[in-house]
Amino acid sequence: MDAVGMRPVILITGASGFTGVHACGHFRAAGMRVVAVCRRLERCLHVSDETVVCDITERQRIRQIMRASKPDYVLHLAGMNDVRTSWNDPVACFEANVLGTLYLLDAAASLSQSPRVLIVGSALGFDPSGDPPRPTHPYSLSKTLQTLTSRAWSHLFDLPALVAEPTNLIGPGGSTGLCGLLAAYIARWEQGLTNEPFQVTTLTERRNYLDVRDAVAAYETLLRAGKAGALYRIGSFELRSIGDVLSAFAAAIGRPFPYVNLQAPPRDPDPQAIPSMGPLLDIGWAPRIPFAQSIRDLMADARARHSRSS
Amino acid sequence: MDAVGMRPVILITGASGFTGVHACGHFRAAGMRVVAVCRRLERCLHVSDETVVCDITERQRIRQIMRASKPDYVLHLAGMNDVRTSWNDPVACFEANVLGTLYLLDAAASLSQSPRVLIVGSALGFDPSGDPPRPTHPYSLSKTLQTLTSRAWSHLFDLPALVAEPTNLIGPGGSTGLCGLLAAYIARWEQGLTNEPFQVTTLTERRNYLDVRDAVAAYETLLRAGKAGALYRIGSFELRSIGDVLSAFAAAIGRPFPYVNLQAPPRDPDPQAIPSMGPLLDIGWAPRIPFAQSIRDLMADARARHSRSS
Repeated sequence: MDAVGMRPVILITGASGFTGVHACGHFRAAGMRVVAVCRRLERCLHVSDETVVCDITERQRIRQIMRASKPDYVLHLAGMNDVRTSWNDPVACFEANVLGTLYLLDAAASLSQSPRVLIVGSALGFDPSGDPPRPTHPYSLSKTLQTLTSRAWSHLFDLPALVAEPTNLIGPGGSTGLCGLLAAYIARWEQGLTNEPFQVTTLTERRNYLDVRDAVAAYETLLRAGKAGALYRIGSFELRSIGDVLSAFAAAIGRPFPYVNLQAPPRDPDPQAIPSMGPLLDIGWAPRIPFAQSIRDLMADARARHSRSS
Repeated sequence: MDAVGMRPVILITGASGFTGVHACGHFRAAGMRVVAVCRRLERCLHVSDETVVCDITERQRIRQIMRASKPDYVLHLAGMNDVRTSWNDPVACFEANVLGTLYLLDAAASLSQSPRVLIVGSALGFDPSGDPPRPTHPYSLSKTLQTLTSRAWSHLFDLPALVAEPTNLIGPGGSTGLCGLLAAYIARWEQGLTNEPFQVTTLTERRNYLDVRDAVAAYETLLRAGKAGALYRIGSFELRSIGDVLSAFAAAIGRPFPYVNLQAPPRDPDPQAIPSMGPLLDIGWAPRIPFAQSIRDLMADARARHSRSS
């Protein structure tokens, strides 16, 4: 609780990231006092009550922040969330995603009153019981180790920590996923700043997309009512091909735009599936924002960003 | 190869530990040039060709040592190998066993000619596909994460790294396992330095024991002929109850000694099994030292240590 004892306190790591900015706004609107831990001060100052700049691998600093803020809830979004960067520096990816999470859990467990902690993993994890284990990239390895460590820590130290594994999050805010890049491209193309077609590597690969605002609502549901030690998969009820995504953007802007299919081999050979979400639906969450709405909001945001930066 | 190109080079971490001292002697006798990486210089100076003091979590130093020695083989024994210590400092246990191994693998992969690397895990790991995952202690968590990381790294970076999971290693050299503690107790009791009975918590718990010298021979077999990315379980073909172990010591010294059964609840609720060793037996290894011989050698060593220290 905060100083006057009226609002629960939530500590959000990675608060300046794509999901983090949405999460800060969401939990503040839900009546919580938001302590934002971030690496880029300017992006989360306006949506949080307190803002602390900290790298998640600074163990002592994490402990100090935890002790000073005494949160009721912790939402852990910080980490390296990019497959390509994980190939360039796999050790840094492990340190950010696995070691950083361990430091956070250890700091949470050191409080006299343990906060409820939600660790956000990824649907891109791999099966750790495979023989041999075959992650597709260092990012996948780091996210599965993060999940395993978190659930095991919950079991070993009786810490109310749980794990969410979202699929591809989309929506306003400038993500670096396919939809975010496509929206930014179209905003530039609309203003005549590029004539090159947008490049995709396949039209048929199918993925599961969820609006980031729905995901943040799921995180609140889990922080309030999820089961300690459990893993919750989060997504929407549809798979969409890259071709479907391109069509949805064309529909949102009311005309076709240029793209080219490079027909490269898939980077993630494992096909995505619609996640089983029974346990999460049972505690009251469901995806609410239609895909077309996500795309419209994304385009409006991309145009606004573009006109600000040009 | 070493300077004159005659001997393959093996880098052994944890060289001053119980297994490490045996490993240094074994690989030197097998004609290799031994580079010992250890934390206690005095214990491995006499069994190695080069000795370097280094903590396994010093990333840059590990890289420097790897580049300077250009090993053909790496045997990774360093780490925190004690269940009780893992409860006292679970973060340090993770850093030593998981992060340290990652630094070693990364350093090995950075060489132009990758060495063959054997990571020594533990039979006390847990099932990472359990829902929820339930390691028995932080040590168990760290060893399973170490194993997963090593095999995944081998897959991702095409590094010839493999994993051995030995059961309880026994033999001369002052281990801190049950047999080592029992031998040290008997040596003191024989000299009249204690009248207290030796304490055990159960007589019926059954474990698998392997002579450390057989284990080191298995490590050589695996380094020479094991399959990259694979996991090899190592042990003997018998399970022995604690009661059997006490009887074997009484037989070795020719008379009964005092002990008391505290009948405490077991610390490791999972019963040990005889490991499946088919793939290792297929490439030419088998346990050769009988249990009674291990115990006799252990007692002779404990008496010699005791008379030196008294």
